[in-house]
Amino acid sequence: MESLSVALGSRSYPIHVGAGLIDRADLYRPYLVGGSAAIVTNEVVGPLYLSRVKQALAEARVTEIVVPDGEQTKTWQPLNRVFDDLLKAHCGRDTLIVALGGGVIGDLAGFAAAVYQRGVPYVQVPTTLLAQVDSSVGGKTAINHAAGKNMIGAFHQPKAVISDVATLDTLPERELRSGLAEVIKHGLALDAAFVDWLEKNIERLLSRDRDAMVHAVRRSCELKARIVAEDERESGARALLNFGHTFGHAIEAGTGYGAWLHGEAIAAGMVMAAELSLLMGHLKKNEVSRVRALLKRAGLPVAGPALAPERLMELMALDKKAAKGRTRFVVLESIGRAALASDVDATAVRRAIVAAPQ
Amino acid sequence: MESLSVALGSRSYPIHVGAGLIDRADLYRPYLVGGSAAIVTNEVVGPLYLSRVKQALAEARVTEIVVPDGEQTKTWQPLNRVFDDLLKAHCGRDTLIVALGGGVIGDLAGFAAAVYQRGVPYVQVPTTLLAQVDSSVGGKTAINHAAGKNMIGAFHQPKAVISDVATLDTLPERELRSGLAEVIKHGLALDAAFVDWLEKNIERLLSRDRDAMVHAVRRSCELKARIVAEDERESGARALLNFGHTFGHAIEAGTGYGAWLHGEAIAAGMVMAAELSLLMGHLKKNEVSRVRALLKRAGLPVAGPALAPERLMELMALDKKAAKGRTRFVVLESIGRAALASDVDATAVRRAIVAAPQ
Repeated sequence: MESLSVALGSRSYPIHVGAGLIDRADLYRPYLVGGSAAIVTNEVVGPLYLSRVKQALAEARVTEIVVPDGEQTKTWQPLNRVFDDLLKAHCGRDTLIVALGGGVIGDLAGFAAAVYQRGVPYVQVPTTLLAQVDSSVGGKTAINHAAGKNMIGAFHQPKAVISDVATLDTLPERELRSGLAEVIKHGLALDAAFVDWLEKNIERLLSRDRDAMVHAVRRSCELKARIVAEDERESGARALLNFGHTFGHAIEAGTGYGAWLHGEAIAAGMVMAAELSLLMGHLKKNEVSRVRALLKRAGLPVAGPALAPERLMELMALDKKAAKGRTRFVVLESIGRAALASDVDATAVRRAIVAAPQ
Repeated sequence: MESLSVALGSRSYPIHVGAGLIDRADLYRPYLVGGSAAIVTNEVVGPLYLSRVKQALAEARVTEIVVPDGEQTKTWQPLNRVFDDLLKAHCGRDTLIVALGGGVIGDLAGFAAAVYQRGVPYVQVPTTLLAQVDSSVGGKTAINHAAGKNMIGAFHQPKAVISDVATLDTLPERELRSGLAEVIKHGLALDAAFVDWLEKNIERLLSRDRDAMVHAVRRSCELKARIVAEDERESGARALLNFGHTFGHAIEAGTGYGAWLHGEAIAAGMVMAAELSLLMGHLKKNEVSRVRALLKRAGLPVAGPALAPERLMELMALDKKAAKGRTRFVVLESIGRAALASDVDATAVRRAIVAAPQ
């Protein structure tokens, strides 16, 4: 097991990465001070891992809360059912919530923990690669509103993240590759040496080699943790983690959420963002080719959807309007070094989209 | 105008108390950095003060959000309509939410501010005495759940509190007296000299004398602010502010919420808590009489409702069960000095209730 820390003063917490961690009672014990816990999971992950986590929490009174699988669960009604169950079980302010599942569960259970009785402690136990390398770290929690994704939420840091790479054995192939997109993103945006390592080890990751996976998850978390420690509430540096996401969100919205997995949209988005970086004179042509090649080897799309560039640009403007900010692009100054660019020329954006044609 | 500060490090904020503050643009200006604001108010307060606050915010793009009056508004559906309106108006992370109204509006708008796009700034403009001396200070926000009051919420400190005592001119008499219960509570729990002052000035407060009101609001806020600064998230000292509330909550629940105003229930609850303090050997008999006399002069009930003591005790146990804590009583060691007491003998509790008979 490898452990690292997210340095946030009194809200600092450890991330444990390894194989076979999910049922280690010692990793949960420090947070069971109140003697009660509630495991929030879904109908897919529950049958696989719920009983093992419950075993690890045997010293506490445990409530099981199983919600449906899928993005639709990140809405008010399922959230309110979590509150119903917590109240029915007389869970108090010292109840530990355990978020067992992927990004949806982490966001939902994390937000429940943020607002139930004005905040209770929680632990993230991510079981998808995407959640292990990205969403479980940093304390961003949210549910969706009809008018926008993640519009209602909170920054609420977990007490710990327990990332068991053995749980990735049950992850569908496509979701594994989708998770790799965020791993690659961390390298491209923040660490050239990690990109080198990924280029050498991408096949090991695709075959779910334990040691390679532990390294990839740990390094991703380290890179993200450094940024989160600098900018907990996303007012500056944290935006760099959105490399590929301005284009990616438009792809997700334009194709109807769910048609493309998040990581797939981000992969195509990173190609567009790399092309934009080239157009703006930051990145070299051979570096853009490296971005494309690595994503391709990871089995990820390197071209946009069958949508007119104008439609994607429209969606980016809408996204900006909903958040009432400017559309900010994250560009690469070189492999491993991202930077923010605002007031980007619309022609360049259009050309970047066209450079990654369907 | 008198101003004081709630000392919470980077989350510190001023409380301004005076007459005619509600339309002073300079008090809002520092928080309008994003150029947009949303005023959340209700159907009773809106017609009285909305246009004046809007005037004061003239430099910003202003969205008006008017919700129904009453405790029923502190639930998910009205909250979600606030989100609808914020999103429709393209309010972003730098939009200032202005909570214009009493405790319900403060709790609802404050919670909306806590979770809209993971947190936006807000200002409290309380227009009831209860809100000015209590609920607008300290950052506690919440909505109710079918299974319990204030079960879903957040600690989210405002950027400022603007308490205009002139708005109390439109407050119904009964609500004024209910607010005085919390003023008296602050004195009884924390400041003997303030109790002396209240005994001398209670008639001036009942006649809404401006200077007396400014003093009472300011001193209440000072006392509460000191406690909040010590214990922002209510893990210790802040519980002292609940003097009279263990009994009071049971009275509110037992009589059906709304039959007794919060302050009325707290007044009777304080008499019971004073009697309990006497039974436990802390308070002297003549001090209990002082408590009773002051509340009586304020036009507040000093006797419980027509409910069996057993019923109130049942409700207190239920309250405890819902929160999965122990029933803790706040007792008085003397006038102006409250203390926590746990493991209080049930016989003493029963006798305290009986000592304030209907």
